[in-house]
Amino acid sequence: MSEWSLVYDRYDPSEQGLREALCTTGNGYFCTRGAFPWVKADETHYPGTYVAGGYNRLVSTIGGHELEHEDLVNFPNWLGLTFRVDGGAWFDLDKVEVLSFEQSLDFQEGMLKHAIRFRHDKTRETTLTMRRFVHMGWPHHAAQEMIVVAQNWSGTIEFRSSLDGQVDNRGVARYSHLASHHLDYIKSGEFTGVLSPDTMIYLITRSSQSRMRVGMAARTRIFRSNVWQEDAPVTVNAIDGYVEALIPVEIARGEPIRVEKVCTLYTSRDKAISEAGLAAREALDRCRNIAQLQQTHIRAWSNYWDRCDIALHPSMHEEQKILRLHIYHLLQTASNHTLDLDVGLPSRGWTGESYRGHVFWDEVFMLPFLTYRLPIVSRSLLEYRFMRLGRARLNAQLEGYRGAMFPWQSGSDGREESQEQHFSCATETWSPDDSHRQRHVNTMIAWNVWSYFLASGDRRWMGLRGAELIVLIARFFASLATYNPAEDRYDIEGVLGPDQFHHGYPATEPHTGVKNNAFTNVMVAWLMDTVLTVLDVIDDIYRRELLIKLDIQKEEMDVWADMSMKMAVPFFGNGIISQFEGFEHLDDLDLDAYRAKHGDIARLDRILEAEGDDANHYKVCKQADVLMLYYLFTESELSALLFRLGYDFTEDHYRRTLDYYMERTTHGTTLSHLVHAWILMRNADPRGLEWMERVLRADLDDIIGGTTREGVHLGMMSGTADMFQRGITGARIADGILNLDPVFQDKIKQMKCKLRFHGNWLQIDLSEDRISINADSAWSEAVTICVRGECRKLSPGSTLVFKL
Amino acid sequence: MSEWSLVYDRYDPSEQGLREALCTTGNGYFCTRGAFPWVKADETHYPGTYVAGGYNRLVSTIGGHELEHEDLVNFPNWLGLTFRVDGGAWFDLDKVEVLSFEQSLDFQEGMLKHAIRFRHDKTRETTLTMRRFVHMGWPHHAAQEMIVVAQNWSGTIEFRSSLDGQVDNRGVARYSHLASHHLDYIKSGEFTGVLSPDTMIYLITRSSQSRMRVGMAARTRIFRSNVWQEDAPVTVNAIDGYVEALIPVEIARGEPIRVEKVCTLYTSRDKAISEAGLAAREALDRCRNIAQLQQTHIRAWSNYWDRCDIALHPSMHEEQKILRLHIYHLLQTASNHTLDLDVGLPSRGWTGESYRGHVFWDEVFMLPFLTYRLPIVSRSLLEYRFMRLGRARLNAQLEGYRGAMFPWQSGSDGREESQEQHFSCATETWSPDDSHRQRHVNTMIAWNVWSYFLASGDRRWMGLRGAELIVLIARFFASLATYNPAEDRYDIEGVLGPDQFHHGYPATEPHTGVKNNAFTNVMVAWLMDTVLTVLDVIDDIYRRELLIKLDIQKEEMDVWADMSMKMAVPFFGNGIISQFEGFEHLDDLDLDAYRAKHGDIARLDRILEAEGDDANHYKVCKQADVLMLYYLFTESELSALLFRLGYDFTEDHYRRTLDYYMERTTHGTTLSHLVHAWILMRNADPRGLEWMERVLRADLDDIIGGTTREGVHLGMMSGTADMFQRGITGARIADGILNLDPVFQDKIKQMKCKLRFHGNWLQIDLSEDRISINADSAWSEAVTICVRGECRKLSPGSTLVFKL
Repeated sequence: MSEWSLVYDRYDPSEQGLREALCTTGNGYFCTRGAFPWVKADETHYPGTYVAGGYNRLVSTIGGHELEHEDLVNFPNWLGLTFRVDGGAWFDLDKVEVLSFEQSLDFQEGMLKHAIRFRHDKTRETTLTMRRFVHMGWPHHAAQEMIVVAQNWSGTIEFRSSLDGQVDNRGVARYSHLASHHLDYIKSGEFTGVLSPDTMIYLITRSSQSRMRVGMAARTRIFRSNVWQEDAPVTVNAIDGYVEALIPVEIARGEPIRVEKVCTLYTSRDKAISEAGLAAREALDRCRNIAQLQQTHIRAWSNYWDRCDIALHPSMHEEQKILRLHIYHLLQTASNHTLDLDVGLPSRGWTGESYRGHVFWDEVFMLPFLTYRLPIVSRSLLEYRFMRLGRARLNAQLEGYRGAMFPWQSGSDGREESQEQHFSCATETWSPDDSHRQRHVNTMIAWNVWSYFLASGDRRWMGLRGAELIVLIARFFASLATYNPAEDRYDIEGVLGPDQFHHGYPATEPHTGVKNNAFTNVMVAWLMDTVLTVLDVIDDIYRRELLIKLDIQKEEMDVWADMSMKMAVPFFGNGIISQFEGFEHLDDLDLDAYRAKHGDIARLDRILEAEGDDANHYKVCKQADVLMLYYLFTESELSALLFRLGYDFTEDHYRRTLDYYMERTTHGTTLSHLVHAWILMRNADPRGLEWMERVLRADLDDIIGGTTREGVHLGMMSGTADMFQRGITGARIADGILNLDPVFQDKIKQMKCKLRFHGNWLQIDLSEDRISINADSAWSEAVTICVRGECRKLSPGSTLVFKL
Repeated sequence: MSEWSLVYDRYDPSEQGLREALCTTGNGYFCTRGAFPWVKADETHYPGTYVAGGYNRLVSTIGGHELEHEDLVNFPNWLGLTFRVDGGAWFDLDKVEVLSFEQSLDFQEGMLKHAIRFRHDKTRETTLTMRRFVHMGWPHHAAQEMIVVAQNWSGTIEFRSSLDGQVDNRGVARYSHLASHHLDYIKSGEFTGVLSPDTMIYLITRSSQSRMRVGMAARTRIFRSNVWQEDAPVTVNAIDGYVEALIPVEIARGEPIRVEKVCTLYTSRDKAISEAGLAAREALDRCRNIAQLQQTHIRAWSNYWDRCDIALHPSMHEEQKILRLHIYHLLQTASNHTLDLDVGLPSRGWTGESYRGHVFWDEVFMLPFLTYRLPIVSRSLLEYRFMRLGRARLNAQLEGYRGAMFPWQSGSDGREESQEQHFSCATETWSPDDSHRQRHVNTMIAWNVWSYFLASGDRRWMGLRGAELIVLIARFFASLATYNPAEDRYDIEGVLGPDQFHHGYPATEPHTGVKNNAFTNVMVAWLMDTVLTVLDVIDDIYRRELLIKLDIQKEEMDVWADMSMKMAVPFFGNGIISQFEGFEHLDDLDLDAYRAKHGDIARLDRILEAEGDDANHYKVCKQADVLMLYYLFTESELSALLFRLGYDFTEDHYRRTLDYYMERTTHGTTLSHLVHAWILMRNADPRGLEWMERVLRADLDDIIGGTTREGVHLGMMSGTADMFQRGITGARIADGILNLDPVFQDKIKQMKCKLRFHGNWLQIDLSEDRISINADSAWSEAVTICVRGECRKLSPGSTLVFKL
């Protein structure tokens, strides 16, 4: 089914990086990238699999202990599987005549397939059929199959199957000056099993900074007429960090030779093992054949699709395909296998090395989809933050604040990894980098915790961990804000909003951040209201203990309550929200003129810089900043929040603020495209569809400066899925009630999806004139569901139908 | 308060091992043993802290990879803190004249204290006051303080503070032939901090088999009049696996010199770190002083006590103290810090090396207390089993069974660690060891999962993980049992019951196990009924997927249903349950005669063996076997279960079966004492009190062959707490209702405790004529509580009072 697969029908080496990113296969434990594993497997090392790492700078820390540049570590490459004929050169796709080629990624099966026909040695024609997968049910397993048919020749074909730990991190050209070698060689060789009598190979390596041990093992079997050629001689060569098995067999004209390679991977961070290398070998020994692996793999994917699919009207064929590609990428990054790991959600998932696996604020775009489908996966990603609370408290303390200050760019142990200096290619100079001033990342974490609670009703976790996160973030902002008695308002200075074009007031104070970023301050007002609610909803015993543990006094809570009503939010005179205090004094810029001159002005800051100018001077935005509020709140919620702060914000103000910033934003990130599309779709704005189409194709067409080859934009991908899930259905939870308010746009006439709400699975079936909601039967209480204000009880096992 | 502490008021080196075990301090992450850290700290290595390990045999596994004897690994010893005067010998308590001595373990504060006055160099009198703790709130921290007062002298006192990785596992004399060295040296040295300007020391080691990296760091500060002697010179010596800091200061007559040592510990299995050694150093650098650590430590303990205490009538002073000692030991073994680790509950906790950290069936005695107090801790211990499900499936497969067969003695990766050969000291011969035939451990795991579900109502976890455990265990027993058409019964052969005296029918089939062990078979009948209930109560979506994933067909469920009604249970003609088929044909033995001759006959098997005889021939039991059914079921539940199987089991049969086995049991384990005490107390049997008193003192008086010095008996300790918690209150949950049926015995007139039930905290206040139950206010539904059949709704925030 073509709505379930991404197909390339020609071989184009120049597209390789992009295809590799888009065709990564993974299971939440590890991901595998590499479109053509057999091409020069001994010369080129494809990014294999990753672990979230930590350091992008060579810093000297306490005790003179120097840290290496370890951030994202490529696991050894397990893909190596190639062949040669009659002792000739190893197969190289670039050196044969390609007669036909098809590569397809099947989302439903989580499988990458290749079918190739080529001519070599002038006359010999051969077909090659391959498939491979990283097992979605058994996180430590992966497998590939290669079928070779000699169409018009016969001879000796020798297969080479390898595990290659001589991999570097070289996936992002811009990082070539950073350390790229992160794997130390420990041991490799061959072994035989107890259940598998084969000669198998294994490789043990270790990450150089974190000293994580990585054990891999591989078993390669050759079949003729589906009979394992058990007696085929196997030669194993092991050199430092690399091991290969060579297996020659005779191949007859027209006879398919099938090769199965099964691989296992464990690290020293895994549970229930003794040593990683031993665990990999033992798991491989008892591992079954590829057919059985494939069966359980596809079944596991089908369970995820059952929960996570969004089905559109058949007329939306292309959108449907892309939506599934996006959901597929989110699920292969974070799945139930994430639960027992200590991993967050890097902005590129595990599909590329860009940003070196660091965790930013993208969760706010990724978690909503997961929270309404796989809430425990969301929780495990929030636990990743909880585990780094100690470091966040230290971060705050070192800068003179209280509470917990999570970093903008978070490394493996929660350390701030934002670069301190930025190199301008235009001017070839270094200047301070202010990324770390994006304190709003903390409000996003609090938002994610609260959203998880609303959807799951998981009061126990809130008491145990969630509340502590929110309280310490509130405390941080209370210490960051200053009370201005003249205005009776709380100000926050020295921050960067999401729009990174403005890092200060250039004339007077460059690189010191801006004052009263509207987005940050409104979120802080929301946070200060929410933290008090949180202390109300958790169990008595947790509240009592938390008040003592964190020494929360009435005076502090009074300040929070006060801040929730008195955060300063700047406005223009006409009721339009000002992005920050002083934004109104900046100059206007004729963006159309720049577009005419430069074409793509997404990174207008760099264009201005090259001209000796500075984006700080202008009313231009890199990405949604004020409009992030539109993404997080409905019009009435935002208006209520601002009213509470003493500001009038009418429907007219809402619409004019939207248009004002849309006109001035260059969309230097996929997230800006996403947020605008999401808002317009949600608000049934006629511009929405065009935005939706554009953002859906952002990675597929690699529109953001060709960066998709460095890894897919997972925030955008997840956010587009959520644009349908919450945007179209209008799902919002308040006071323990699920509210739906469907909107339709032109093509979007119907949609089906599941939503998980307070432990219930709801099947939502949406069409233009009605919405039906079915609840799986379960041992649970009835829930209340409101559609456009009409509220009804839904009991387990029953169905509600609302007319629209 | 003496009901909150264990006090020793004299120094007796011969009691040292016992005191060390009883006075272990820990936090669920690591435990510290060692009563006198300053004695010969450079010569003797005290067991420090442990990690659950894996292997007790030198086995050759796949790939010729040989495993070392790594099971329980002692972490490096952080206790080393001693001194010398005027360059003399390092302080040694055995070489001075002890004038007064007091050692006390304070349960409430989780603190070990010493106060000693001694004379040295003939005339010099000195007092030494120490306290230390492993931090209950911050799992990676520990601290100790030493105050020295020179009563009648002055001079130079030099302190030595060390981290010692040259530790072996030598805590159990019987294991001296096993490998004892499990720590490899990696690195050590000194460092200075960013927040702490001190010279500090660190040590990095690695376990030799599992390659777990262990990083430790320590900071030692000397105070005079509470002023840190920042300028005191520090000399650091680092040799392989050992590092020390030497700090000399002047000491004046009567002037207290106070030393603070703070230590941090991380392993490579910890979350949110880069490298363990770095994590330990960074954590130490930002660590505050001992006063602040102590405050948060005591607060954390007070939260645990608030949840977990059992308060008895003041007249039960001694029982109260011991009960708290027992609860203290359980909590320092398993706490919230266990949640993110992959650890089980070894039978000795982390207080000693006996059984090398392996996990047996003791959970069935340990978990009930936790499940009613800290259910998420229980759940994390059940997850330990879930993580080893793959290995349990392999265990079953290798022996020709289906489903999952958990081992009797479980190593780090879930491998069977029961010894294969047993050495008889009496006859100096080796014979097969049949311990692994104790298949009932699997029914206990299913029981624990179900009990957790009943108390917590955690349907999500049951769907996600719990159900799979129970189903695969049921499948294992279905493949172990054989259907006997003649009797229309299911038989199970070749097992060992809890009574390890009988491993077969010696005349014909020694070492092949027994047939139809009553305990095992009744539990299997219970299991087969329960597994079908489990599939009913989990969410639809989980059930659908589980049926497919595990290929559960109607035919298999029909067999389960059939087995639940047709397991064979042997009886004597008079209605007494026979321990196993053929037990009735064994000979009687005059136990009184053996008691008269040998005194303690707990290990009667060894006595008989020494006489050339064999316990297999006799109607004698090492420990509760049939009576385990009395521990798990009430009389009416057991009678209903047996009725369902087609057997009449009257009140008279119940009583006579009890007496029959009580007369024939030698109680070769603390658990047998516990089970008998529990049953008698629960049934208000007048013999109960005597049994209760005896089992409460089992470790304190080291009554089980002097084995407490090898580690406390944690099953007994937890079980005695549960004997009050569930035994006295009669708490049982069925159909989502909490039933209470209090019993009183002589001294036991009142009791207060909390119980956690379906997310509610209930305060139970019990006296002879009434029981009051208060629910903490919370966002939850009302629950139903029945006292002796009278049922009422209890709403959050309200109180129910029942007259008794």
